[in-house]
Amino acid sequence: MLQSLKAQLGGKVSTSPTDLETHGKDEGYPLRRPPLAVVYAENREDIQHTLAWARETSTPVIPFGAGTSLEGHILPQGACISLDLSRMNRILEVRPEDFLAIVEPGVTREQLNTALKGTGLFFPVDPGANASLGGMAATNASGTTTVRYGGMRQNVLALEVILANGEVLELGRAVRKTSAGYDLKDLFIGSEGTLGVITRLTLKLHPLPQHIHTLRVFFDSLEAAAEAAYQLMGSGLPLARLELVDELGLQAVNRYLGRDYPEKPGLFVEFHSSTREALEAESGSALALMREAGALRVDAARTPEERTLQWEARHQLYWALVAQYPGHQFMITDTAVPISKMPDLVRFAQATLREMDLGGSIVGHVGDGNFHTLIATDEALYPKAETFAAKLVEYTLSLGGTCSGEHGVGLRKKKYLQAEHRGSIPWMQQIKRLFDPQHLLNPGKVV
Amino acid sequence: MLQSLKAQLGGKVSTSPTDLETHGKDEGYPLRRPPLAVVYAENREDIQHTLAWARETSTPVIPFGAGTSLEGHILPQGACISLDLSRMNRILEVRPEDFLAIVEPGVTREQLNTALKGTGLFFPVDPGANASLGGMAATNASGTTTVRYGGMRQNVLALEVILANGEVLELGRAVRKTSAGYDLKDLFIGSEGTLGVITRLTLKLHPLPQHIHTLRVFFDSLEAAAEAAYQLMGSGLPLARLELVDELGLQAVNRYLGRDYPEKPGLFVEFHSSTREALEAESGSALALMREAGALRVDAARTPEERTLQWEARHQLYWALVAQYPGHQFMITDTAVPISKMPDLVRFAQATLREMDLGGSIVGHVGDGNFHTLIATDEALYPKAETFAAKLVEYTLSLGGTCSGEHGVGLRKKKYLQAEHRGSIPWMQQIKRLFDPQHLLNPGKVV
Repeated sequence: MLQSLKAQLGGKVSTSPTDLETHGKDEGYPLRRPPLAVVYAENREDIQHTLAWARETSTPVIPFGAGTSLEGHILPQGACISLDLSRMNRILEVRPEDFLAIVEPGVTREQLNTALKGTGLFFPVDPGANASLGGMAATNASGTTTVRYGGMRQNVLALEVILANGEVLELGRAVRKTSAGYDLKDLFIGSEGTLGVITRLTLKLHPLPQHIHTLRVFFDSLEAAAEAAYQLMGSGLPLARLELVDELGLQAVNRYLGRDYPEKPGLFVEFHSSTREALEAESGSALALMREAGALRVDAARTPEERTLQWEARHQLYWALVAQYPGHQFMITDTAVPISKMPDLVRFAQATLREMDLGGSIVGHVGDGNFHTLIATDEALYPKAETFAAKLVEYTLSLGGTCSGEHGVGLRKKKYLQAEHRGSIPWMQQIKRLFDPQHLLNPGKVV
Repeated sequence: MLQSLKAQLGGKVSTSPTDLETHGKDEGYPLRRPPLAVVYAENREDIQHTLAWARETSTPVIPFGAGTSLEGHILPQGACISLDLSRMNRILEVRPEDFLAIVEPGVTREQLNTALKGTGLFFPVDPGANASLGGMAATNASGTTTVRYGGMRQNVLALEVILANGEVLELGRAVRKTSAGYDLKDLFIGSEGTLGVITRLTLKLHPLPQHIHTLRVFFDSLEAAAEAAYQLMGSGLPLARLELVDELGLQAVNRYLGRDYPEKPGLFVEFHSSTREALEAESGSALALMREAGALRVDAARTPEERTLQWEARHQLYWALVAQYPGHQFMITDTAVPISKMPDLVRFAQATLREMDLGGSIVGHVGDGNFHTLIATDEALYPKAETFAAKLVEYTLSLGGTCSGEHGVGLRKKKYLQAEHRGSIPWMQQIKRLFDPQHLLNPGKVV
């Protein structure tokens, strides 16, 4: 069956064991299942050929970017083609005068930001991993800077997509706002490759911050940290990041790096000020605000070197946990709630970890009400971790939250969508059928 | 036929001549055509009854908010019911601790902001008119503050809608971000009442700016003003509004108010600073930047009184034009382009006005690449104004722009959508058919 695909696409079709293996897993889901073949698409026509073949042979196709997803988005559930877009990695246009860039889907966020050096602009969405921008749009990724700059949905102005039937559509426009017609662009963002293959993105760029200052602040209780975070959110100070690390994480970092951070809830805060004088004023104002909010200790930093050290505990947390739990993998939850509900949910997560005798830590984008529980698992512990995650999502939904703030649904969270979206699910399914009646594009994911 | 509707809804159904007249027009489209009846819905059940009756009798229903739309969104095209939502005007919940409010669709933006007094928060989307929030979501409205705070799409977290079949759906969640499932919320925002009736909105609130300063700056040429605007956009200064008024508008204001503003392209700029000291620094920085960009004259203002005077020319422009063209009405265009294309398009608009011997002026949200040409028309001039608008849209699309930055499609712009969205139009039509197979909801609008 693959013969006819190979006849058309030649060396772009691979069935090498290494390729099959790397395309049969992601960075967070335990399942391993290789695809039939990997197609390394180099242009639209390669994708259209692959989809035509898929329609004829009724073989599913899974778009694949950098493979950094966490929820099983890119995993085959049966015989299928992994459509690798990493060779479509050209930055097609950078237009500083319009604050935008046009890229192919395989361009990674670091590649784009490197290319933007010298323009005074950057692309702010930072999910941690050096993900592909196509993949980031497909999952509506966001990250530490989202509290200020928004996630992918706010920063993708337009998309070119290829539908299951081979049609090429342009969705959205290269403008900062539009009210002309139904918003198909945002329907495709976050659709995880189930409605079409993203082949081009028009991205919004932002001026690089000229003056950055950071605070690392520790509090006696989660409530105090949350109240301080709320004060910061309401202050009008130019908040660019607002991250929480819990006491369990700081314990792990202290052991791993031999530090003596207070083993208390910590906030890691970054401000982007417009002038040197504004920085002075805003930094002073933020410090005073944190002290008034009952901070146990406040460390401020202004130079790049100081800042790097400042964020050490936040950035090293994952590796500290890896060192603390050798031989384990980490399941990462991704719930988000209305921000006042954060302390309640974090306490619930910590108590449940203890009750279930699971190891891990909590790190959160507290300005967006989104946090991750990093749970140490192995084959034996995995079902327990899944039970933990289910309890957490159930409580999250009861607080009006969402099962996914930024990682997407994939395979892992599909079971939660019914409770979250109830009556909307059949409509999502009908939209899926409309765009992909043969269920060829990443079937079994999202809805 | 109306008997059975009246039997169910009693006095909520009106066929009084005044009601029919006020529901048969909007604020910008020349057509007048009264509906069969107006239903003043007070709750979900009233809407469901109306829709059930509509399905049985195959009578279209047009959701109606404050009636401030400009493009014919709310105008009957044949026998239909105008579903007036202005009585559903309760602010259901204000949760400052979550930076959100939950409102019924008939609540106006001014009503909400009045209710928010004392919370330190506000709802920033300001389209000028005191529109209903349901209507603003239906057209994805935005305005002068969008360059900083975003438009409706960025500030509506969740919607409750009733579909043509009577089903109640909740779309989105009351959280600041989610990646869980297809984004139906944004599909309904901007769908102009053609996919469902909005019955509840969860809105994102923002801290009230504590320190505001403004600049009014005049330039010798449009190019110089645009370059200055670009410099401001890239500066990282806390820009909250960035408006352009052209020389024609300033001429009209001078005549109307007896002022002596330079009759040159003017920028009206507002900054929201976080502290008094930051304001000093940012104000100084903005002044220096404007002078370096070749400003002819810069006026700065800091007190509320100074600011009111500062914005006079921008706010009085419409009335100055009304006075200059007595007996005329104004057609208002709404194109948006990538921001570097603004000067080109503004010059094209001015030259075309002159060539066609049409009177008017240009006012623009230059930070978003969106501007309005206000064209003086009457019955005789209207076809000429339509020709002007068509030329402007054609040129806009050739520059990669959109026919509507913020007013929506309605009746007037439907003819442009094909050129703007091409292959996507049949998919929009299929989505319409999916949600409203009988074409009962605001038929003939958008797609």
